[in-house]
Amino acid sequence: MYIPDPISKLIDGFMRLPGIGPKTAQRLSFYVLSMEEEDVMELAKALVRAKRDLQRCEECSNITDQKRCRVCGDKGRDRSVICVVQDPRDVIAMERTKEYHGLYHVLHGAISPMEGIGPDELSIPDLLKRLEDETVQELILATNPNIEGEATAMYLQRLIKPFGIKVTRIAHGLPVGGDLEYADEVTLTKAMEGRREL
Amino acid sequence: MYIPDPISKLIDGFMRLPGIGPKTAQRLSFYVLSMEEEDVMELAKALVRAKRDLQRCEECSNITDQKRCRVCGDKGRDRSVICVVQDPRDVIAMERTKEYHGLYHVLHGAISPMEGIGPDELSIPDLLKRLEDETVQELILATNPNIEGEATAMYLQRLIKPFGIKVTRIAHGLPVGGDLEYADEVTLTKAMEGRREL
Repeated sequence: MYIPDPISKLIDGFMRLPGIGPKTAQRLSFYVLSMEEEDVMELAKALVRAKRDLQRCEECSNITDQKRCRVCGDKGRDRSVICVVQDPRDVIAMERTKEYHGLYHVLHGAISPMEGIGPDELSIPDLLKRLEDETVQELILATNPNIEGEATAMYLQRLIKPFGIKVTRIAHGLPVGGDLEYADEVTLTKAMEGRREL
Repeated sequence: MYIPDPISKLIDGFMRLPGIGPKTAQRLSFYVLSMEEEDVMELAKALVRAKRDLQRCEECSNITDQKRCRVCGDKGRDRSVICVVQDPRDVIAMERTKEYHGLYHVLHGAISPMEGIGPDELSIPDLLKRLEDETVQELILATNPNIEGEATAMYLQRLIKPFGIKVTRIAHGLPVGGDLEYADEVTLTKAMEGRREL
């Protein structure tokens, strides 16, 4: 099968991205040919810049293009609360609620013995360093509600208890707009356990 | 919502591609951060090269990185048959069969009054020029089996008949490995019409 070299290189490139198989990669590559040259250059530049200019915030380990991320650098944020999340995307999701005004700490993963990820592979030592500062009064564990996330939350809770800091875990329950009928048993049990008086 | 500038630029870039919405663009962008720098550079370079180095073959209008595409430049191909397709991807699909040894002509679209695409927007004038050469004996119309493709085939058939060249249309019928039960009525009717004696 003959595909011109520049196209097959591009197909290979797209196929390195997650969820993009040979068919999609081919479709995207041929679409690129029909795009404005300017837009293609923008995308190519954005790829290079995203890889080269981003680093971890020296305080919370979130990704940033400065030394400190915008949340850590914001004097209006409540510095007594730290919300621990697994991923930079979780910070974006949390910020979207516009309800949380504390700081974050990004672990960049969760403890997973299956994948060989222990506490040392995560940014947990940096978190402990931050807790030495006495302004921190509450640590919200907002790791994912799955096995790895729960294990990480449990591990952190035990590790941090001696510091005398309040450690909380985000609530489990039914998603808003969801349907009770289709909720799985574990979620439903958690929702019952977590019921509150109105 | 705060996303570092290099990331949001990359998300915007990915969103320009077809079938990639905000969620997928965000997922891809964050994945790029975890990729090897070398792989990201490869992809960026491939994007630029695909856009800059590719042109249309001066003979068949297929995309190529040379003046003439590999099929047109291949002396072993049967120059008496031209297969007319809508898209460079169709050439790839056809070559994959390894059964066709003639030449191609890529229209780069189909006649579609709804989208304002008439015969002049396609590479039909170049096709007519090729037919002046008397080596061409058969023109296979392999445009897509949908309304635009059929209309284009019909148009070409009428246009080319005066040249005294045999004009054929690829067969309609049941796809191999398909299920008669699930075939739509039109396909089934076409399959019946196109039946052949064994």
